Amino acid sequence: MNTFEQHESEVRGYCRSFPAVFSSAKGAWMTDTEGRRYLDFFCGAGVLNYGHNPDRIKQALLGYLMRDGITHTLDMYSEAKQRFIERFHEVILQPRGLNYKFQFPGPTGTNAVEAALKLARKVTGREQVVGFTNAFHGMTLGALAVTGNGFKRAGAGVPLSHSASVPFDGYLGADTDTLDYFEALLKDGGSGMDTPAAVIVETVQAEGGVNVARVEWLQRLRRLTAEHGIVLIVDDIQVGCGRTGRFFSFEEAGIVPDIVTLSKSLSGYGLPLALVLIKPELDQWAPGEHNGTFRGHCPAFVTATAALQFWQNDALAQSVQKKALQVEQRLQDMARRLTPDARVRGRGLIWGIEFSDPALAGRVSQACFERGLIIETAGIDDQVLKLLPSLTISEQELAHGLDVIEDALRATLGLPVATAHAAEPALAQAA
Amino acid sequence: MNTFEQHESEVRGYCRSFPAVFSSAKGAWMTDTEGRRYLDFFCGAGVLNYGHNPDRIKQALLGYLMRDGITHTLDMYSEAKQRFIERFHEVILQPRGLNYKFQFPGPTGTNAVEAALKLARKVTGREQVVGFTNAFHGMTLGALAVTGNGFKRAGAGVPLSHSASVPFDGYLGADTDTLDYFEALLKDGGSGMDTPAAVIVETVQAEGGVNVARVEWLQRLRRLTAEHGIVLIVDDIQVGCGRTGRFFSFEEAGIVPDIVTLSKSLSGYGLPLALVLIKPELDQWAPGEHNGTFRGHCPAFVTATAALQFWQNDALAQSVQKKALQVEQRLQDMARRLTPDARVRGRGLIWGIEFSDPALAGRVSQACFERGLIIETAGIDDQVLKLLPSLTISEQELAHGLDVIEDALRATLGLPVATAHAAEPALAQAA
Amino acid sequence: MNTFEQHESEVRGYCRSFPAVFSSAKGAWMTDTEGRRYLDFFCGAGVLNYGHNPDRIKQALLGYLMRDGITHTLDMYSEAKQRFIERFHEVILQPRGLNYKFQFPGPTGTNAVEAALKLARKVTGREQVVGFTNAFHGMTLGALAVTGNGFKRAGAGVPLSHSASVPFDGYLGADTDTLDYFEALLKDGGSGMDTPAAVIVETVQAEGGVNVARVEWLQRLRRLTAEHGIVLIVDDIQVGCGRTGRFFSFEEAGIVPDIVTLSKSLSGYGLPLALVLIKPELDQWAPGEHNGTFRGHCPAFVTATAALQFWQNDALAQSVQKKALQVEQRLQDMARRLTPDARVRGRGLIWGIEFSDPALAGRVSQACFERGLIIETAGIDDQVLKLLPSLTISEQELAHGLDVIEDALRATLGLPVATAHAAEPALAQAA
Amino acid sequence: MNTFEQHESEVRGYCRSFPAVFSSAKGAWMTDTEGRRYLDFFCGAGVLNYGHNPDRIKQALLGYLMRDGITHTLDMYSEAKQRFIERFHEVILQPRGLNYKFQFPGPTGTNAVEAALKLARKVTGREQVVGFTNAFHGMTLGALAVTGNGFKRAGAGVPLSHSASVPFDGYLGADTDTLDYFEALLKDGGSGMDTPAAVIVETVQAEGGVNVARVEWLQRLRRLTAEHGIVLIVDDIQVGCGRTGRFFSFEEAGIVPDIVTLSKSLSGYGLPLALVLIKPELDQWAPGEHNGTFRGHCPAFVTATAALQFWQNDALAQSVQKKALQVEQRLQDMARRLTPDARVRGRGLIWGIEFSDPALAGRVSQACFERGLIIETAGIDDQVLKLLPSLTISEQELAHGLDVIEDALRATLGLPVATAHAAEPALAQAA
Repeated sequence: MNTFEQHESEVRGYCRSFPAVFSSAKGAWMTDTEGRRYLDFFCGAGVLNYGHNPDRIKQALLGYLMRDGITHTLDMYSEAKQRFIERFHEVILQPRGLNYKFQFPGPTGTNAVEAALKLARKVTGREQVVGFTNAFHGMTLGALAVTGNGFKRAGAGVPLSHSASVPFDGYLGADTDTLDYFEALLKDGGSGMDTPAAVIVETVQAEGGVNVARVEWLQRLRRLTAEHGIVLIVDDIQVGCGRTGRFFSFEEAGIVPDIVTLSKSLSGYGLPLALVLIKPELDQWAPGEHNGTFRGHCPAFVTATAALQFWQNDALAQSVQKKALQVEQRLQDMARRLTPDARVRGRGLIWGIEFSDPALAGRVSQACFERGLIIETAGIDDQVLKLLPSLTISEQELAHGLDVIEDALRATLGLPVATAHAAEPALAQAA
Repeated sequence: MNTFEQHESEVRGYCRSFPAVFSSAKGAWMTDTEGRRYLDFFCGAGVLNYGHNPDRIKQALLGYLMRDGITHTLDMYSEAKQRFIERFHEVILQPRGLNYKFQFPGPTGTNAVEAALKLARKVTGREQVVGFTNAFHGMTLGALAVTGNGFKRAGAGVPLSHSASVPFDGYLGADTDTLDYFEALLKDGGSGMDTPAAVIVETVQAEGGVNVARVEWLQRLRRLTAEHGIVLIVDDIQVGCGRTGRFFSFEEAGIVPDIVTLSKSLSGYGLPLALVLIKPELDQWAPGEHNGTFRGHCPAFVTATAALQFWQNDALAQSVQKKALQVEQRLQDMARRLTPDARVRGRGLIWGIEFSDPALAGRVSQACFERGLIIETAGIDDQVLKLLPSLTISEQELAHGLDVIEDALRATLGLPVATAHAAEPALAQAA
Repeated sequence: MNTFEQHESEVRGYCRSFPAVFSSAKGAWMTDTEGRRYLDFFCGAGVLNYGHNPDRIKQALLGYLMRDGITHTLDMYSEAKQRFIERFHEVILQPRGLNYKFQFPGPTGTNAVEAALKLARKVTGREQVVGFTNAFHGMTLGALAVTGNGFKRAGAGVPLSHSASVPFDGYLGADTDTLDYFEALLKDGGSGMDTPAAVIVETVQAEGGVNVARVEWLQRLRRLTAEHGIVLIVDDIQVGCGRTGRFFSFEEAGIVPDIVTLSKSLSGYGLPLALVLIKPELDQWAPGEHNGTFRGHCPAFVTATAALQFWQNDALAQSVQKKALQVEQRLQDMARRLTPDARVRGRGLIWGIEFSDPALAGRVSQACFERGLIIETAGIDDQVLKLLPSLTISEQELAHGLDVIEDALRATLGLPVATAHAAEPALAQAA
Repeated sequence: MNTFEQHESEVRGYCRSFPAVFSSAKGAWMTDTEGRRYLDFFCGAGVLNYGHNPDRIKQALLGYLMRDGITHTLDMYSEAKQRFIERFHEVILQPRGLNYKFQFPGPTGTNAVEAALKLARKVTGREQVVGFTNAFHGMTLGALAVTGNGFKRAGAGVPLSHSASVPFDGYLGADTDTLDYFEALLKDGGSGMDTPAAVIVETVQAEGGVNVARVEWLQRLRRLTAEHGIVLIVDDIQVGCGRTGRFFSFEEAGIVPDIVTLSKSLSGYGLPLALVLIKPELDQWAPGEHNGTFRGHCPAFVTATAALQFWQNDALAQSVQKKALQVEQRLQDMARRLTPDARVRGRGLIWGIEFSDPALAGRVSQACFERGLIIETAGIDDQVLKLLPSLTISEQELAHGLDVIEDALRATLGLPVATAHAAEPALAQAA
């Protein structure tokens, strides 16, 4: 670790919470250079929905590399990109009745968000975009302007412009539909909020503290934006690719966004890839108007194509729903018994426990790490313990992780820790 | 190609100039799905300085993947990152007497530029940054604000702020030292140009038309910025990693930038990776103040480490110098004979021919493609034919590519085309 | 009028509603070049609180001009300015227990607002300022950024930045305290609203449609801004100088703003003058940091000093309260009888009737003009008929004007018009 | 003065250089409360081109006030405005073959500049405007963005956007035509300078240090802006209304700007008034799109109309030319003898001496004040002694003022001071 402390910038973050040097990983497990194993309830912030190094994707990748498949093509045509587009259309879009054009921006989430915002501005001729309180969309200046976190915003070093923030679902308590406020602003020519080009929304705010938008709220947002000619962008970078159960997180609400951004778990193997899905009538880009060197990164197309196998039938979605229930029940039960004023919320396999003492989440995360479980906090004060296990985790592994959380919570609260849990040896096999 | 025309966004660009579907690649050669081979004088816009899929890097990558080395770690510590940092320090920084901290932003050039600009603003407490005419630094809003291209700037959809553009070396003709102007603005409290946080510069403007800054100009820029407490950022994304002969493009000038951005050829294999090198005293980031999901993309660390082998001795640098001479002489000779008013310029293995008729470069590029050579244009009017062969190309391949250019130029000008060139069969073997 | 149509810019506005060429004026009455007289319920948008050309101010002005008192001094010291400062301190500030420094910016409201915003930004080191829905603060870029009207905002021709708009009192209906929302944003580091340097508020939004903030709301706003170290600016340009009864409109709420802007009726005679009152501890201006040529316009200091006579005792304030009651009762009565769903609101001598049919207000204003009464509309859709009679109007004149409004409303609604009203000849005398 | 020190904001400026309390003024002379008289070579920063309280204007003003001419009309039609428009058209525009629409913004220079910039942006649909190094256009955010002074710019408290600064004539020395640089940027789509909506220029930069643009430079600027469809705004606020000899400062160059801003000496009596002259085809304002309370300030229309008498024949213009020669010769002579490396420059009756020691100008100004002469400094370092006598000053008064300057300069340099000058008693009569 000396290397890092000496040479890596102070900007490094997660390594401070999880001070191990990781070496290999498989399925739900990570191993450090000293051979210690950690169950992963973080999944690289949602990048590893299919677990670490899943074999069926790995084989496709190795095969491509071994035959000297072309690695880098900018936005020239490649066989790998062609296969990905065709399969994604066939496996994901067509069965859902969706029709989108594909834009591959630079291979990170923030690049996808920047592209989406540019396009919405071009298509509408307006400049303002609206994001929500506690949203997270990225760190480059365009995306940061619709990100809520004040600490990260201040990092811009310049004022963030051409954007406004309105309250997310539930922000003002259960009794207030926050879209009443947004609608009032939109309808009133004197509101001081210039009509926006776009609204960008996460259906579940992951970084923002596992805030879950209700289906009715999303539906009303879709109606409102349609009525006012505003481009609706769903940023599905963290909670798309099956995180909430179905491939897209907005499917449950039955809405069709104008633009969708995907990244993180899209390549299925941790390789950088990003995708902007655009309604055909909005695809008003001029050739080369937005670019980025690594927008044609073929190994990621190969793994992303292989990952689509997970979506050829309903098995994964059903398994997620089952495990979601397992997590929800266990967390509710745990909260009821140990921290009755904590709030448990989530969808699919993203769950959060918000404790009344904001400092508790961080201490529990630390206690989990000591017990071999990687789990992060979220929310502006890191007040939410965030569960983000892989979708392919076994029920047994999941149960083990939940046991660890309970142990860690008990220990942190100074309560006696349970002695008998699901046996760990079995878990080792699962990897 | 139907797939792309039907489903891919209109934003796609290079594929319109080079309408082939590429399948595999090796060394200096690319092969399309119909088995046609193309000599690559473009190298994915500078990503493939070591050629396509170089074997010594490929073996390292395959080994890592096969042993289930961890793929994705955000900015947690990993063995792969540790080895990269240590080797880069040992092979690149130490021998050059350089001392920089390492920041790994999102793995694209524009993310690195955004990080560098943010940090310069934080450190100085100023907001304005200065770029140069015809600069190219990226497509996200922060980087785009210091990019010169008006078409790409307009794509922002919002006015680009907190930046100013001053003339690059040679912009006002050979008789004017453009830094006289910049210095006048800096010294004059009434100039209307707020003192900048940073100046960002490419030593050779690649996208901007292969504009080469003189060594003396770079040295004066370093002095000027130092005198005024301005952070000097060298964006070495396209012309670093050996493109101009030495590892960093600024070595020839003997200057030490405050911040250096690297990406493109850094991973050596086309995998996305970016690096911001920061003078230790400027490393004033707070933990997590800037982040990005794929900033810990281990396969790229593995290939980047393997690529450092090329820099353990002087062989590559010397070979580049030799080939640079070969290119320069051939281009000068070709220009003298065929287009006497064309201007030839370059350094290392980046060269440009600017024709007096701006449309000529595009037509020659097209004629090259028909003859199996991939070569791009650059400059605001695509008026410059840009040669960007891999550094590892053989002299024979290089000669062949230059022959093709001459043939294409002759054909475009309506002149008879030479019949006898270096034999192509030999080249086939080289791949 | 040919002169105007031929030579004056299309930007001219009020003249389109009131197409007469005015020549002279006295008290509550204006006379056009054809000798037609109009009762003035508009008062030059609040500039003429003491009526047209009030004699006691006029004499002071004539005396000054006749003795060649200096007219223009920039911000050099002048006898006229000295007397104004001393008298304003003595008559207005001291009796109210207020202690403010005086800044004289350029002599218009928008210049005062720009100065106030600059100073708040300087003092706090923050850039964002917050205004309210339907606020009006001026047309220069800084003031326009906190003005709600979308049509006027679009006139900027650039996006308006460094500002945000939050809902004014009553914006979301009587049941919602809009400061709940603002407080939530302020407390939440993830709200996406950067902590503002200042909040700028009108206690009664005049242009915005005669929206009256409740005393409790103003008090809470004062507490909230104090708690968060935010500069509270009360823009009293239109409803200060006695419009709501007391000299400052915020007196009723018992709050002390950090900065107060005054203009319009400050000079008491229609001469341009503006004043920024600043808490001493916030007076962190450097000499000359903000300037403006006409900031030392002595005739206006002379009339403004003379106007302070109105405030040496309580008579004017009491008379306003009495007339306020007269207006309120008459409007409520009129609305109850003729347009039961109209909303009547106001304070002091600023009153509005908001009809359910937004077009009605404009038609009534037009019918009033035809009947010799000048009365304007307000609100984003001109949906509010706005009464702004002079404070010195007689009860008889006031009654006459209210009669005209009722006649005009009846005529517009197609109802029979009353025949007997207070006799007009008597009014002629009053002038 | 205690009053000011105790109650007036620290922002006050000129009073610190000229610490007298002024009471009355006439012609070229000001008198303080202690009866001391000062010859005025400053003229309220160019507001008093016709001297203090000129009788023929004064009579018109008194007559209007005494007959209760209407004072304030917003932008309703008034007799006073009508007469001004008609006379200005007849006396100024028609004889010069000019055809402009009249816009009356808020009555200060900065309001006029804001209106002009807004309109140029609206007409062109572009956002960027270009100003020149050391320009001064006002203190509100829009005008400040094209003002060069870094200290005043910093006062904005926000970054100034949508503007760029290019070098004024002579900025890079006599050998460089600075428009070569501007033209290069305009022609080059990659220059990083977005095509501007407008260029705003002062023909003589008064605040900026009496920098005089050459006629050829202005002509080329007019051609360049016309070629690129850029609105050319001449800001004639300080050097229009005869300051350079003819009514408009640009007449000598024979150019026709698209928009002209006037204020300062427009009313001729120190009353606030501003005017934007707009080519008819650019008058694309919507009614009320830009407004401002005091845009119909009738006393100023009355004095401005009376001031036009000065322009009914050539007498004033000729007298200015004669006095210009007197000033130039005396200053050149004085410089040659006393400070050979000082630079003397000017046009009409605006002149500057730039000393090689920047601190000298301030010390000379101070010594002048002690000798009863008001004279200011200009330039970013206050390095220029600026002469701005009234146009109606007598040659004898002018000679006296120049004598005082020479005495003050000699005293400051430690040289013996001349004893015999033009007698002062005669001057007393002139007032």
